[in-house]
Amino acid sequence: MSSIVVVGSMAFDSIETPFGRIDKVLGGSANHFSMSACLFAPIRCVSVVGRDFPAEHLQLLQKKNIDVSGVRIEAGNTFHWSGKYGYDLNEATTLRTDLNVFEHFEPELPENYRKSEFVFLGNIAPALQMKVLSQVEKPKFIAIDTMNFWIEGCRDTLIEAISRCHCLIINEAEIRQLTQTRNIVQAAQTVRGWGPQITVIKRGEYGAILFDHGDVFSMPALPLAEVKDPTGAGDTFAGGFVGYLASQSSFSLSRFALRKALVYGNVMASFAVQDYGSSNLVQLKRDQVEERYKRFVDLTHFHQD
Amino acid sequence: MSSIVVVGSMAFDSIETPFGRIDKVLGGSANHFSMSACLFAPIRCVSVVGRDFPAEHLQLLQKKNIDVSGVRIEAGNTFHWSGKYGYDLNEATTLRTDLNVFEHFEPELPENYRKSEFVFLGNIAPALQMKVLSQVEKPKFIAIDTMNFWIEGCRDTLIEAISRCHCLIINEAEIRQLTQTRNIVQAAQTVRGWGPQITVIKRGEYGAILFDHGDVFSMPALPLAEVKDPTGAGDTFAGGFVGYLASQSSFSLSRFALRKALVYGNVMASFAVQDYGSSNLVQLKRDQVEERYKRFVDLTHFHQD
Repeated sequence: MSSIVVVGSMAFDSIETPFGRIDKVLGGSANHFSMSACLFAPIRCVSVVGRDFPAEHLQLLQKKNIDVSGVRIEAGNTFHWSGKYGYDLNEATTLRTDLNVFEHFEPELPENYRKSEFVFLGNIAPALQMKVLSQVEKPKFIAIDTMNFWIEGCRDTLIEAISRCHCLIINEAEIRQLTQTRNIVQAAQTVRGWGPQITVIKRGEYGAILFDHGDVFSMPALPLAEVKDPTGAGDTFAGGFVGYLASQSSFSLSRFALRKALVYGNVMASFAVQDYGSSNLVQLKRDQVEERYKRFVDLTHFHQD
Repeated sequence: MSSIVVVGSMAFDSIETPFGRIDKVLGGSANHFSMSACLFAPIRCVSVVGRDFPAEHLQLLQKKNIDVSGVRIEAGNTFHWSGKYGYDLNEATTLRTDLNVFEHFEPELPENYRKSEFVFLGNIAPALQMKVLSQVEKPKFIAIDTMNFWIEGCRDTLIEAISRCHCLIINEAEIRQLTQTRNIVQAAQTVRGWGPQITVIKRGEYGAILFDHGDVFSMPALPLAEVKDPTGAGDTFAGGFVGYLASQSSFSLSRFALRKALVYGNVMASFAVQDYGSSNLVQLKRDQVEERYKRFVDLTHFHQD
């Protein structure tokens, strides 16, 4: 088992859906990723929060095997995002973004983080993602996420950051935008040309698809009769994916390791959307994860040997 | 093995995509379904064409084990549909519909059709679908398709027709419209309440999902680097699904039979979209179908026993 360094935001999210609303629930990419990945491996979290951030939440993270010594507490308020979903819960409309202390975030890794073999570069400025990378000594597996804001604002820097990674984890609409290609097989080939061996495309309620050299693996999402809040599902997915890879007794990116990792990503995302923020992950136990993993076997199994 | 009665349209389709256009290719739901299902079982086709319909095409169908004695040739022109796709190839815009001889279509089954155990009610007026049904003596498996036009125009008659079937095969957007429900798990439950034991939802490039009592099976589509024309993919899918069920040595709707049938549906649809109309199906052999079936095993397999 290896530890994972994650960099990303810790935030308050205020979310409206046609089914309800919630104010200032704990969110942010680093938070969602960590709450998910900590079920698989020790996490070392890099982020920044304001003085309004509840100390109990940092304690909760610590109890869950998440090292928060790299989370700086600065004067000012924590990053706050407000968003709204329509009935289809597929795309969020941002109502308001208050960067607050996140505006001048300069990630700095504590000494004990630097030897981690796994790195997840959550959705922040590509220049900062690279800054984190330069502080890790010998990473064996680096995964990177991003969003439309960076694709529009600094595509070249973003592609440079991606080229230094082993794996891109990205939304379907965003890989199309990033590669300027409609067809996702072609889009994944373009990303491959930039460097990463592995591309994972998140497709929301349709699941995820993995491209690894010539190999393709596709996994639908678990059909749920109720979905409450998709916020953070992508980071929770990444937590399951990278978390499983780091949890292996020895390092492997074998075909089956990657496929299982993708299923764990889907498993974790399925829990995330069933409640607001990461509420559903707080009490989650590994045996519930394994139980749901089996439901994915059941959902897709058709071949009798 | 059992024969399948199919009722639906035989048409000329004129199709524009950003990648090309084709004029008056042979299409129609009965045609697409038959060209696909005939690789699995004998087909008995009920439809109507005009005097402009090429005799060679009817001969081609006959050579492929498709009985066309139920296809009436009437004075006038064949049904002609013109449509256009944008870059995403997901939704067609109808440019023109000339019903022609299809306007006064009254399906009548030849004597030798009436003992068929499998029935596919392709997308025509629900009242006509029921008329066909009343002419089949002891059907064991009836599947029905429909489209937004009938949902909007005669929802009650449509629900009555659906209630007489074992299986509804429908697009994702259309089941939402039909059941007035966003969530597809809930939508499938609503359909179940109307009568059909099985609901199959077609999700285009995301594959298909099957609800059968409490069982759920989900299968992604094969990722293709090039998609030429999605017209008829849904009927081709239905041809693989119903075709496989009819091809079994003894009647079974077991869990694994239905799951395999869904995969065959996806297999056939993956061939259909690679060329215009049903061109790709004309020369298709059963061993190519089996080869592609294995690609679906490979695409989704992650569980090592």
